[in-house]
Amino acid sequence: MLDRIRIVLIGTSHPGNIGAAARAMRNMGLEDLALVTPRCDPRDQEAYSRASGANTLVDAARQFDALEAAVADCTLVVGASARSRHLPWPMVSPRAVAESLPQVLAPDGARLALVFGREDTGLTNAELQRCHQHVHIPTNPDFSSLNLAAAVQVLAYECRQAYLATEEAAPPSASETDQPFGVAWDNPPATHADLERFFVHLERTLTAIEFHDPDNPRQLMARLRRLFLRAHLDSMEMNILRGILGTIDKRLRDRD
Amino acid sequence: MLDRIRIVLIGTSHPGNIGAAARAMRNMGLEDLALVTPRCDPRDQEAYSRASGANTLVDAARQFDALEAAVADCTLVVGASARSRHLPWPMVSPRAVAESLPQVLAPDGARLALVFGREDTGLTNAELQRCHQHVHIPTNPDFSSLNLAAAVQVLAYECRQAYLATEEAAPPSASETDQPFGVAWDNPPATHADLERFFVHLERTLTAIEFHDPDNPRQLMARLRRLFLRAHLDSMEMNILRGILGTIDKRLRDRD
Repeated sequence: MLDRIRIVLIGTSHPGNIGAAARAMRNMGLEDLALVTPRCDPRDQEAYSRASGANTLVDAARQFDALEAAVADCTLVVGASARSRHLPWPMVSPRAVAESLPQVLAPDGARLALVFGREDTGLTNAELQRCHQHVHIPTNPDFSSLNLAAAVQVLAYECRQAYLATEEAAPPSASETDQPFGVAWDNPPATHADLERFFVHLERTLTAIEFHDPDNPRQLMARLRRLFLRAHLDSMEMNILRGILGTIDKRLRDRD
Repeated sequence: MLDRIRIVLIGTSHPGNIGAAARAMRNMGLEDLALVTPRCDPRDQEAYSRASGANTLVDAARQFDALEAAVADCTLVVGASARSRHLPWPMVSPRAVAESLPQVLAPDGARLALVFGREDTGLTNAELQRCHQHVHIPTNPDFSSLNLAAAVQVLAYECRQAYLATEEAAPPSASETDQPFGVAWDNPPATHADLERFFVHLERTLTAIEFHDPDNPRQLMARLRRLFLRAHLDSMEMNILRGILGTIDKRLRDRD
């Protein structure tokens, strides 16, 4: 279970935080670290110093130019957020994320990304809107800004607690192994890359039928993202929605 | 409750760890920091740098020559220990410590000390034997040495979770009743009647664009129902989806 959890750090400024995050991960049994456009040298001496023996994770960390590439193969993307922005988004606690893992990671190929933003400004709205859910670590309202590695520590700790709880429980029966919604499901979950291609197609078609004006977008695409991310589309639902868009496109061409 | 929890650091070598521990404490609403024979200057610049705004805790930290003096007024002393030593001692998990707090701290004057040892060697046997209990943070057996401030973060986080649970035990206020996704939402949920009208409209439009054949329905509408019901649409999302369908209908009429 823990081997299918990726920690994604975006735009990290301090190599010490990368090292400390790697140490926190390895302490809790997580190994998959992805760095998106770091604003420092992740192999700086300070990173290794704070990693304190988790150097292998620092060395193995893959780097990406954009969040999408880092989470393309993930089936659930959860972004760390101090607070909900203008547009409320499904918000879960660290414990709720962790306790959902046995179900979330049950299907073959399921993979979770936990995404952490910049030390100073967190995740952008565009990044937050690529997440199925946001996770908020409850903090003192008078002093709410957690150190980046401390936030990784809390989430990684909760994931390990949930993992240990599954180890202690009886092994699940075959019929219980594929239950993202509390019941055996009929199709594997859609990947993040599938979803992003769908959103591109959706926006193109909504523009073509003149429902959407990219020059005056308001919050339309953000609201539709929120809706479809929240539903945790499976692969067949994804195909149906793409099929509907393709058919609309065809009818528009018939017209012309 | 949180104001009766003291964090005690013994023989700390790195001022950065004192600062980071202070930050973790204040993030979680703990204020009472005690230092026993630190092996560094707790007011070093590195401490303030890592405290990142929790300087008041660093400045207010009291220093003691021995563990006994630091915990003299405490009614429960819990020492962080990697593993039970030669002599087995009551061992609890961080969550168990936290969940016991409402009872432990119920009596007047009750006070808890959480005691953390040196970065390199932890607590001595003599110190461990001054504790009522030992707490072990479950870690990866292959890489078990937590950073000091990370260990403080995990325990402080668990204490805050337990504190919040006692707060939530009170009946929810009116403002908390409208949180279908764990966060105050921006629109009321769609009604069942709205949804059924939407499904009628959806089927009509999908039939008109010749994506759906009512004479050979397979499971199309059932799958779309499942998807949109699962998402728990709000009223504005409902209006957007109806608006999209209406626009498609209009384009089809334009064509004819």
